[in-house]
Amino acid sequence: MTICFYLQDGVEVLDFAGPMEVFALAGFRIFTVSLRKEPITTQGILKIVPDYGIDDAPAADMLAFFGGEADHVSRNPVLIDWIKSRQASTSYFFSVCTGAFIVGRAGILDGFTATTYHANVEALQQLLPQTRVLGKVRFVDDGSVITTAGISAGIDGALHVVSRFKGQETAKKVAAEMEYDRWVPSEGYIVTAEAKK
Amino acid sequence: MTICFYLQDGVEVLDFAGPMEVFALAGFRIFTVSLRKEPITTQGILKIVPDYGIDDAPAADMLAFFGGEADHVSRNPVLIDWIKSRQASTSYFFSVCTGAFIVGRAGILDGFTATTYHANVEALQQLLPQTRVLGKVRFVDDGSVITTAGISAGIDGALHVVSRFKGQETAKKVAAEMEYDRWVPSEGYIVTAEAKK
Repeated sequence: MTICFYLQDGVEVLDFAGPMEVFALAGFRIFTVSLRKEPITTQGILKIVPDYGIDDAPAADMLAFFGGEADHVSRNPVLIDWIKSRQASTSYFFSVCTGAFIVGRAGILDGFTATTYHANVEALQQLLPQTRVLGKVRFVDDGSVITTAGISAGIDGALHVVSRFKGQETAKKVAAEMEYDRWVPSEGYIVTAEAKK
Repeated sequence: MTICFYLQDGVEVLDFAGPMEVFALAGFRIFTVSLRKEPITTQGILKIVPDYGIDDAPAADMLAFFGGEADHVSRNPVLIDWIKSRQASTSYFFSVCTGAFIVGRAGILDGFTATTYHANVEALQQLLPQTRVLGKVRFVDDGSVITTAGISAGIDGALHVVSRFKGQETAKKVAAEMEYDRWVPSEGYIVTAEAKK
């Protein structure tokens, strides 16, 4: 499993660092992409150099988006066009917090169930009438689209991804390794085939 | 409160990103330092440009150290000498995970109670006979020295720091903002003046 972390300027540091820790411990291959291959900062603090710009980013099994300055970022047609252009070669989309607005504006959430930061649940629902937006849930797994609630909930959603692709024993091992015994799988919502009908 | 995050090459991403998120939301001023002002990577993944090298890093109220490649790093006399040279101008030391080995080798933990990554509790105790090393605790607050258990426990220790300096209401607000309702203050160990005798 190869996972592309899209990191915009102003990205919230824990939004992506939690899942990055989880996926790294699980042995997934990770690389970072931003609009251009130029340094960005998280909340104005941490300076990060992305591995690629969108012009030269390789394909990945999973494309991941995160909150922090997400609304502004999601209004950039260049980024939205890039996400749409990657849809055919991408098996899974993952978002944390208001990262859901970025994938949402690219049409990725249409017809799916999703979640976002607790304060933005209604706004996302208004923006995406073809999406069922849930509140009060740590993460939603709707097959090819996995979305999580805010900031630290990204850790829970990432552990769920590990559980789904490598088994719950591996996910539990990762959680123990990072001393995150706070993972409660049942706090997530998994869309069943039955519910999709 | 100004907090200096020392980030070594190979630093564990969640070790520092959890506390960075907490301290940023609490309004603390944060900057990053590494041995040299050159890019480092977290676990070989995320490329970070530190704000300063140790040669030009300004003073900070709190110096923070993190795990991942910490044992190797803590054997560098240049770094250890720098930490010792900062002791007089630093009010508080904070460590996450095996970051305790770095501050420990600089003598900062001598005479204090501390904790570290669950798998390294015994090794730290052997290295530091003048330190009381506790296991099975999320964080230890021993006045000027605050240490936490592994990786995700840094979030809990950082919330405790916010609680101590800005009050528990502020800490609870930060925890709610980052959807980390998993914070259990009682899972930390606070050294009382009585216990110090």
